[in-house]
Amino acid sequence: MTSAPGDTGLLAPGWADSAAASATSDDAYLRALLDAEAALTRAQAALGLAPAEAATAVTEAAGAGAFDVRSLSERARSGGNPVIPLVAELTKAVGEEYGPYVHRGATSQDIMDTATMLVAVRTLDLVLADLGRTERALARLAAEHRDTALPGRTLTQHAVPTTFGLKAAGWRALVLDARDRVKAVRDSLPAQLGGAAGTLAAFGAYGASDPAALPVAYARELGLRVPDLPWHTLRTPVADLAGCLAFTAGALGKIAVDVLTLSRTEIAEVAESSGGSSSAMPHKSNPVRSTLIATAARRAPQLAATLYGSMAAEDERPAGAWHAEWEPLRDLLRLAGGAARDAAELAEGLRVRPDAMREHLDLTHGLIISERLSAELAPVLGRARAKELLTRLASEGRPLAEAPELADADLDPTHYTGSAGALTDRALERR
Amino acid sequence: MTSAPGDTGLLAPGWADSAAASATSDDAYLRALLDAEAALTRAQAALGLAPAEAATAVTEAAGAGAFDVRSLSERARSGGNPVIPLVAELTKAVGEEYGPYVHRGATSQDIMDTATMLVAVRTLDLVLADLGRTERALARLAAEHRDTALPGRTLTQHAVPTTFGLKAAGWRALVLDARDRVKAVRDSLPAQLGGAAGTLAAFGAYGASDPAALPVAYARELGLRVPDLPWHTLRTPVADLAGCLAFTAGALGKIAVDVLTLSRTEIAEVAESSGGSSSAMPHKSNPVRSTLIATAARRAPQLAATLYGSMAAEDERPAGAWHAEWEPLRDLLRLAGGAARDAAELAEGLRVRPDAMREHLDLTHGLIISERLSAELAPVLGRARAKELLTRLASEGRPLAEAPELADADLDPTHYTGSAGALTDRALERR
Amino acid sequence: MTSAPGDTGLLAPGWADSAAASATSDDAYLRALLDAEAALTRAQAALGLAPAEAATAVTEAAGAGAFDVRSLSERARSGGNPVIPLVAELTKAVGEEYGPYVHRGATSQDIMDTATMLVAVRTLDLVLADLGRTERALARLAAEHRDTALPGRTLTQHAVPTTFGLKAAGWRALVLDARDRVKAVRDSLPAQLGGAAGTLAAFGAYGASDPAALPVAYARELGLRVPDLPWHTLRTPVADLAGCLAFTAGALGKIAVDVLTLSRTEIAEVAESSGGSSSAMPHKSNPVRSTLIATAARRAPQLAATLYGSMAAEDERPAGAWHAEWEPLRDLLRLAGGAARDAAELAEGLRVRPDAMREHLDLTHGLIISERLSAELAPVLGRARAKELLTRLASEGRPLAEAPELADADLDPTHYTGSAGALTDRALERR
Amino acid sequence: MTSAPGDTGLLAPGWADSAAASATSDDAYLRALLDAEAALTRAQAALGLAPAEAATAVTEAAGAGAFDVRSLSERARSGGNPVIPLVAELTKAVGEEYGPYVHRGATSQDIMDTATMLVAVRTLDLVLADLGRTERALARLAAEHRDTALPGRTLTQHAVPTTFGLKAAGWRALVLDARDRVKAVRDSLPAQLGGAAGTLAAFGAYGASDPAALPVAYARELGLRVPDLPWHTLRTPVADLAGCLAFTAGALGKIAVDVLTLSRTEIAEVAESSGGSSSAMPHKSNPVRSTLIATAARRAPQLAATLYGSMAAEDERPAGAWHAEWEPLRDLLRLAGGAARDAAELAEGLRVRPDAMREHLDLTHGLIISERLSAELAPVLGRARAKELLTRLASEGRPLAEAPELADADLDPTHYTGSAGALTDRALERR
Repeated sequence: MTSAPGDTGLLAPGWADSAAASATSDDAYLRALLDAEAALTRAQAALGLAPAEAATAVTEAAGAGAFDVRSLSERARSGGNPVIPLVAELTKAVGEEYGPYVHRGATSQDIMDTATMLVAVRTLDLVLADLGRTERALARLAAEHRDTALPGRTLTQHAVPTTFGLKAAGWRALVLDARDRVKAVRDSLPAQLGGAAGTLAAFGAYGASDPAALPVAYARELGLRVPDLPWHTLRTPVADLAGCLAFTAGALGKIAVDVLTLSRTEIAEVAESSGGSSSAMPHKSNPVRSTLIATAARRAPQLAATLYGSMAAEDERPAGAWHAEWEPLRDLLRLAGGAARDAAELAEGLRVRPDAMREHLDLTHGLIISERLSAELAPVLGRARAKELLTRLASEGRPLAEAPELADADLDPTHYTGSAGALTDRALERR
Repeated sequence: MTSAPGDTGLLAPGWADSAAASATSDDAYLRALLDAEAALTRAQAALGLAPAEAATAVTEAAGAGAFDVRSLSERARSGGNPVIPLVAELTKAVGEEYGPYVHRGATSQDIMDTATMLVAVRTLDLVLADLGRTERALARLAAEHRDTALPGRTLTQHAVPTTFGLKAAGWRALVLDARDRVKAVRDSLPAQLGGAAGTLAAFGAYGASDPAALPVAYARELGLRVPDLPWHTLRTPVADLAGCLAFTAGALGKIAVDVLTLSRTEIAEVAESSGGSSSAMPHKSNPVRSTLIATAARRAPQLAATLYGSMAAEDERPAGAWHAEWEPLRDLLRLAGGAARDAAELAEGLRVRPDAMREHLDLTHGLIISERLSAELAPVLGRARAKELLTRLASEGRPLAEAPELADADLDPTHYTGSAGALTDRALERR
Repeated sequence: MTSAPGDTGLLAPGWADSAAASATSDDAYLRALLDAEAALTRAQAALGLAPAEAATAVTEAAGAGAFDVRSLSERARSGGNPVIPLVAELTKAVGEEYGPYVHRGATSQDIMDTATMLVAVRTLDLVLADLGRTERALARLAAEHRDTALPGRTLTQHAVPTTFGLKAAGWRALVLDARDRVKAVRDSLPAQLGGAAGTLAAFGAYGASDPAALPVAYARELGLRVPDLPWHTLRTPVADLAGCLAFTAGALGKIAVDVLTLSRTEIAEVAESSGGSSSAMPHKSNPVRSTLIATAARRAPQLAATLYGSMAAEDERPAGAWHAEWEPLRDLLRLAGGAARDAAELAEGLRVRPDAMREHLDLTHGLIISERLSAELAPVLGRARAKELLTRLASEGRPLAEAPELADADLDPTHYTGSAGALTDRALERR
Repeated sequence: MTSAPGDTGLLAPGWADSAAASATSDDAYLRALLDAEAALTRAQAALGLAPAEAATAVTEAAGAGAFDVRSLSERARSGGNPVIPLVAELTKAVGEEYGPYVHRGATSQDIMDTATMLVAVRTLDLVLADLGRTERALARLAAEHRDTALPGRTLTQHAVPTTFGLKAAGWRALVLDARDRVKAVRDSLPAQLGGAAGTLAAFGAYGASDPAALPVAYARELGLRVPDLPWHTLRTPVADLAGCLAFTAGALGKIAVDVLTLSRTEIAEVAESSGGSSSAMPHKSNPVRSTLIATAARRAPQLAATLYGSMAAEDERPAGAWHAEWEPLRDLLRLAGGAARDAAELAEGLRVRPDAMREHLDLTHGLIISERLSAELAPVLGRARAKELLTRLASEGRPLAEAPELADADLDPTHYTGSAGALTDRALERR
């Protein structure tokens, strides 16, 4: 199989060919692993624990791109992680003189975790950019449709009217909630450096007078937060990533399931800008972006569950809990990245059909405002008679306007949207 | 089955008989539902939308405790939630004059969600108290055993020495992380009030000139945060609860799996203060608290996954996603509450056996410090010969002290704990 | 809280007040635990290892119902399971003479696992009965609506016509698949008997010449399968239950999501026999049963995941994996039991509206059969021109009948249901 | 990123470079998709619906391997699945004359689902082979160590003795259970063919007099089972795969967690044939295979949960539930395939250390047989005094042999293994 091309997302139209896919590829992880190794030697050089030439040599060798991902994948197996063969190769590439400075005092997990944080930061930045596009487009939709009435639907049935502005403002509120959570986690992600059992002991053995200065220098080289403690088995960063990514997928998933519902042939109140087409069925315009976002929302929670489950990591390095994080975390980053891309396109291109919305408000022959009539008729007719009247009208299926008792009532459903406009205005003030 | 007693935790020793169990019982939910109804009428009275006497009457009837949980459970089925039968009963209990003010303008979800937030706040306060006890006990352990060396273990094997102080400090760091996340979520939980489709329209129909003032008054009555928007299908509060509770279970789970490992008969470096006993096997002292905490850590992630999955809630009220939150959220509150209780007892009573730890440092005949010897011998013997020497000694299984090349080396494993002490000190500064 | 009533399903309208709820209550588990203890003593008596009087005494004491579930729940905590305090109480109830024969040679897990299997068998029988009702009702619907055409919908859009008969036949096929899986698992569930570490050693110490005969006698007393091996940490029965219950919830969930979609106000092709009502909105008729079934389908997979995760159970009894099974397995039994009840009612009472279905076939102005026209026009017009024509007609939104090129075509969508009828007939042959 | 190599398992040492990895690569899926397309045209030709030359032309073009996975992955996005661009390319490759016979009458899901079943069958065959190797090696271990006594451990503590033979026989029983479930599912996997909405209608439009004959011919071409009904939204095959693969991962996970425990430095009763090594710590021999198997066991249940969740698939093709199956099912196949490979190597190479086992039986100074002494002393001393004696001895920590009351007792722990040998023998009879 050596000539096989590797996986590029054939089963994952939701994230294939996205910036997040590139940022989380095996190749991207390899680059991050090399970045971590190079930063480690540079940090040691900065503290006088290695010659400056070693730092230069390692950085150059790491940057040269002469490493074969497939070969590393295969050789990762005997030790259980890809850092072991990579260190061997990098050491060789650096050469005899400075080779001994590669990975000096570190453990595989230091490099693997740090690389994962680098990949996460890079991908979260892409997610944040697309969440920003999404919320801006939703703000425009909410403002534009502040007073566009449509049926509020509960348990699949028309309830009372609401507005599309309030709906879009609600979507945007979720996107902003996701943005806030992703941003906070992104800024908290630490470098990892502890050595074999998290005591930094080897750095002392190699001559560091203050080993605790090393993680500081290392984190700065990488632009990551300085860790409070080595976190080999204190998995707060990974759990926090799980939480904010599952949240993001769920927040975008809410938009997707609403668009899917409103796109149904019988409803058709919204449509994606360009749907997936079918050659044999030219009338079809599938809401593909919503479908792919909904896909991410279905998968993310269980991936996050695996990561939360890995918090119970025994000893100074667990036999399985750590390894079980790698692929699910990448999957989450990809799914969130792809879903954010699709959400931005979806929001920017969404076609809204106020006429269809207005038409559907009449589907219940006026009963969509029966709540209002209940409230207004009760003082006049008495509560019991008011209810009786409405129930009778509902069962008859005749237009309410024909009922003599309602001759003077305001039966226009677009007048019964309550505080939807005010709520929308207030929600749009949030930045 | 009318005489059957209901479930009290027979299958859940992890949370049975805990304060969290009481705070999350059907009875506690019923009280919270009644609290929400009473607050709603009081808030309306405060804004002049209902007579003060109605507020008093509803509050009194809600407080009277004359409601039958089992009967409500059974009648919840036809409408799909327990608020519908409860409103009918409460209205009747309030009487003809003020009955119409019960639940006026609200939807079942307003009451159900608000009650859930009340239950959550009350339970999280219990969790926070027990996390506080836990972290204080762990701080004491970390300080006391700052310099108690034991084997650092990675992938089940001795790696290099570490200290029990650093281990306990790491546990405490996770507990503080959990505390910070729980506290932030607890303080963010909002009341819910939106009416049938989240537009507050019915309150206008009942005469409110500014319906948006009502959620403010309502939230204040309840001591909950004022919501930005009705959140019937914007499930940020529930997702945040999922995240912080899964985090808490995982954080405590890390402590549990470590204690379970260190309690093994062959290791016996720690023991729970009083273990579960066996009449036929008097030597057994089972680490029951750790077992029950580990149980919570195994279950919580999947419960949280269901809640994250419910974020994709269609329309103005979803047909299933909302209902699927109720039991898993309660389960999470209970599991976290029970685990925090057990963790506090565990930490406060943990017996540490430094002698056993010291003894195990010698199990590898000195090789537990081979990392140090590698570093120190390389400049003397050359890197290759140093490695060769240590590999040979490892394969021979003889004590390192007998090797002539190591005659001058410091072979005391307790001297190779690196920065463990300094890291512990720094970690203990966090409050 | 001693007077609090215990939980009876206030948060779970999906299973509250069902036969499955009774069959899985704490009380039902207590009875099963006592049944297991009594059977153990009887089995020993049958093999001459205990006096017949002891068997009678234990059976009588176990049947007397004098045990307090709440108290047992509370005392379960110190040893981590409810069997320990139960054995103490039962021994006391049996009295001095025969008390020593209670639980003799067994371990708590023998009793707990056996009781769980008893509860499972009893609940699965209820599930099977309701799956039977469901499939019979669906068979009637499929036969009755064999030729009732409605729009086939893919990715929310009308595709080509199908029939309601085929839809119902598909639902029934899933129900039969669930029935087959549940039935096979039900008949495979074994008793558990192994003693402290699964070697049956204590029975030998108490005098059994052939300890392996005891599990056979014990299983027969209980009507359970004789186990091949003690399965304390070989969790095939629990994993199989997880699989068949998640399958059942998913199978019924398919029906539910279809009914929810077809019940939408805009679609209204089916309706539950009696929907949940709203006093303020008399036009609403919520599809409550479908909602509750969909709820079960959302929760079951994650509960099953916890059970599959517990297969990795270390040693002869794991510290957590076993305990983590208890509540999720009960939850699954309840959810499947409640969902099967609701599915039976749903299927038996479903109202089908062929007129609405027929009307919707015209919503795309005939394009719902564009696939057929593509196929039929291609040989006449050439493939490219045929496609061009249909695409143009689709974009114009005019009725196809007005297009001169289609003057002779059969444009009746009910004539384009392919093999739906034949497939339905064949599916209904399955028993 | 066009030159990037695609993912080859850098984050997945558990399955990288395995036969299952090749069998589930994007490339393997592409081949299966092409196999499905070619079989469809051949089946049509066999029934006279297409010229034999078309079948040949499509089969040749499909076999030519001129398709670019990366490009297809990218173009899959607009329609939401890779079949759409593939059909376009394949049609072009076949040429003008026979191109129209490509994919004729089928829908994307027919091809995608069929390809997935092909990939599944091919991978399950690999899994079955490795499960076979595993069970044979375990049978040898069980027979060889039929009477090798070691401590039975419950809740981490020594309980009573057991044998390594019984342990290995139990592992094997789980492997056989997995084999039986995988085999049954493998043989049940059907081809998929239904057309746009599962009615086979287009095949009729293209001239088939008996469209239902087509799935039969198609399935036979592919060596898959003939489906009872098109199963676009009747997801039994996928759910069954989820169940048997999660079961397999859990069954192997049980072996892994046992080996991890028994490999601990303090226990060292078993060791993997060649462990992962560390250059700086030459004494380390990490149980890497067990670690990677345990990793699979941690991940599989949540992946299966996503698949069970996708059973609730609305309409004739769902918008998300189907797409959410693709990657998780592949992940499960890979994880099970990799774990089975590692399990076979683990079992074949496991080193067992009876001496260490024997030594540990004495760690409790004889109390490991206190259960036996309880049983035997009770008739002599009375139950209460016997218990008191053993409790006193347990607390004193003195060897039991020194207690005068036990002067005549058989204190050899290897004599207290109960029916372990007989149970092992019986378990090994299973084939």
